[in-house]
Amino acid sequence: MSTDTSSTDALMSADSGEPGFWTVIPAGGSGTRLWPLSRSARPKFLLPLLGKRSLLQETLHRLGPLAPAERAFVVCGPAHAAPVARQLPTLPADHILVEPSPKGSGPAIALAAAIIERIDPDAVMGSFAADHEVGYEDAFVAAVKTAIATAREGWLVTIGLSPTRPETGYGYIQRTSEELCRARTGVAFRAAGFAEKPDQATAEAYVASGDYLWNASMFVWKASTLMAEIERLIPDLAAGVRRIAAAWGTPEQDTVAAEVWATLEESTIDQGVMERSDLIAVVPADLGWSDVGDWHGLGELIAADPDGNAVRGDVVQSNTRNSVIWSETGRLIALVGLENIAVVDTEDALLVINRDSAQEVRRIVDQLKAKRRTSYQ
Amino acid sequence: MSTDTSSTDALMSADSGEPGFWTVIPAGGSGTRLWPLSRSARPKFLLPLLGKRSLLQETLHRLGPLAPAERAFVVCGPAHAAPVARQLPTLPADHILVEPSPKGSGPAIALAAAIIERIDPDAVMGSFAADHEVGYEDAFVAAVKTAIATAREGWLVTIGLSPTRPETGYGYIQRTSEELCRARTGVAFRAAGFAEKPDQATAEAYVASGDYLWNASMFVWKASTLMAEIERLIPDLAAGVRRIAAAWGTPEQDTVAAEVWATLEESTIDQGVMERSDLIAVVPADLGWSDVGDWHGLGELIAADPDGNAVRGDVVQSNTRNSVIWSETGRLIALVGLENIAVVDTEDALLVINRDSAQEVRRIVDQLKAKRRTSYQ
Repeated sequence: MSTDTSSTDALMSADSGEPGFWTVIPAGGSGTRLWPLSRSARPKFLLPLLGKRSLLQETLHRLGPLAPAERAFVVCGPAHAAPVARQLPTLPADHILVEPSPKGSGPAIALAAAIIERIDPDAVMGSFAADHEVGYEDAFVAAVKTAIATAREGWLVTIGLSPTRPETGYGYIQRTSEELCRARTGVAFRAAGFAEKPDQATAEAYVASGDYLWNASMFVWKASTLMAEIERLIPDLAAGVRRIAAAWGTPEQDTVAAEVWATLEESTIDQGVMERSDLIAVVPADLGWSDVGDWHGLGELIAADPDGNAVRGDVVQSNTRNSVIWSETGRLIALVGLENIAVVDTEDALLVINRDSAQEVRRIVDQLKAKRRTSYQ
Repeated sequence: MSTDTSSTDALMSADSGEPGFWTVIPAGGSGTRLWPLSRSARPKFLLPLLGKRSLLQETLHRLGPLAPAERAFVVCGPAHAAPVARQLPTLPADHILVEPSPKGSGPAIALAAAIIERIDPDAVMGSFAADHEVGYEDAFVAAVKTAIATAREGWLVTIGLSPTRPETGYGYIQRTSEELCRARTGVAFRAAGFAEKPDQATAEAYVASGDYLWNASMFVWKASTLMAEIERLIPDLAAGVRRIAAAWGTPEQDTVAAEVWATLEESTIDQGVMERSDLIAVVPADLGWSDVGDWHGLGELIAADPDGNAVRGDVVQSNTRNSVIWSETGRLIALVGLENIAVVDTEDALLVINRDSAQEVRRIVDQLKAKRRTSYQ
């Protein structure tokens, strides 16, 4: 995976990667906690946060050894269809599934599953968020291959990440030691269940137990298995996305989609399906993963200088440690006598935040919404 | 003093104010500790920090009841002569004394004294920094009137400010209880001596004693008394400025000034004359004074909101207290989870600083000098 997108993609054909494996990349959400860098019109997945490629581009690139762009779909909102199309030139235009309104990951992934199932009834599909970071790409490919082998046997497979700290911001999956599938690339276990974001003490107990893995919403299943479970658990959703899928590529596509989509209830694939299913398998993996969720986390992905400062920009400092400085303006940024803060400098907005309060950036965006300061959202 | 400069000045004539009283405003220094707002080319005294008028304009305005602009002088460097002339339209052009190079307050004030002495051998003159804030203007006028009465009796008079905290950043004057002059507006006492910037424990002892007053370099003396003391203590300086004063207003002015100025040793009026003289009187006063020296101090001069935040700009915050936000750019500034910091947002540079480290801004400017990043200095 050291070559760049274009040359890698040039080597791919529709038959490359894992045969019969399709991917979907749900590209929803704006990444509020990375405000002011991320905005509604400039969501996190479109930003080149950690390299020259955006997180979305990185995601498609990472999936290249498993499925070529011809077997990939992106689900996004109307406002982001054009930038997604520009950022992913190898993705077929009709593989950008535009959801008329945000309804959560349930309808988004179900729609992709229904469309993929129509194209390839035996398809195995994987769903991977558009805005996460994976450090160990070979390990990622191996884990997905294990998941694919497991999915072929009819399981709904999650890739569960070995926790590296007692994080309270993520959900967890409890594994068992019951092997469901042993592949050349790894082993899948039966999952005991999902757990919502824990408090600090619970998170510490989870990590200490060794049985709990982070749920990063990396899912692999047969399209038909998923659709059957959706039909069982949320029958209106299954019927709705099948109606849309039947009209997909016809002149009625947009009319049907708009009409049906409006009737769908909001749901997430995690809570609506996975947490209620008995078919859950988990592939434990160590992927150097991050959800790049907030300024504290992003700072940890940038190599720090000897004072512990992670810097993107023109910075002069005195007695400042363990801070994150991210500038898009080219301005000189001077810091004196600070510890553990993040400074985010954009053309029209400046954020200064205690890294321990990184989750609270939402409150700023909430205030801006309440004041209808739309240009900043 | 509630009218604006133009109408006040229009009422003044050369005979108004205190008869025979002249003023000099040394306008040196750039106010490094207020970087990035203050720069070499945009020194603190030229900035409208706390109102619509610059600190320099406020200073001349404050002196209006004591001496009209026709009896005022400003001493500044070549780079600032034009902006001073523009900011003070009522000041006669030849009352802007341009020192060829910075030599400290000793030569600057001595030159003004020598020129004033030639115009009016009996002149009493007062020297007041161009970049300080005085909250109580009537008290200031009263204190200066007391100082003028005392100066007429041959004393070198300082106005000593009642300390409001054990400040380690200022020098102190020790007073005695020996009355030297009792005027209608107040009393002057013999000074026991000056003390350099103390450590914390010493500062606390000074404040507790009640005998120590802040030295704000507010001086009043007869020009002839000062020149006699300079002649005794720094004879080369007295001779030099008298040579320049003799050529002042003649075609040789600039040639003589350049030639003589280059030979003068650097000195301050505080250390070179006042601290070595036995003629020191002090007028204690409570003036609501500030040297507006750094971002911590400037923050204290801005009315704070209920969270203790002093704000100039467009700020949205969450859980942020006792902080100073100063923006010149109009950008939105968002703060989360912070305590006791200052954020200074200018077009080309951004400063974020712990208010307790406000004095350390110098280190940033030093680093910029070392890197020859001249546009930021």
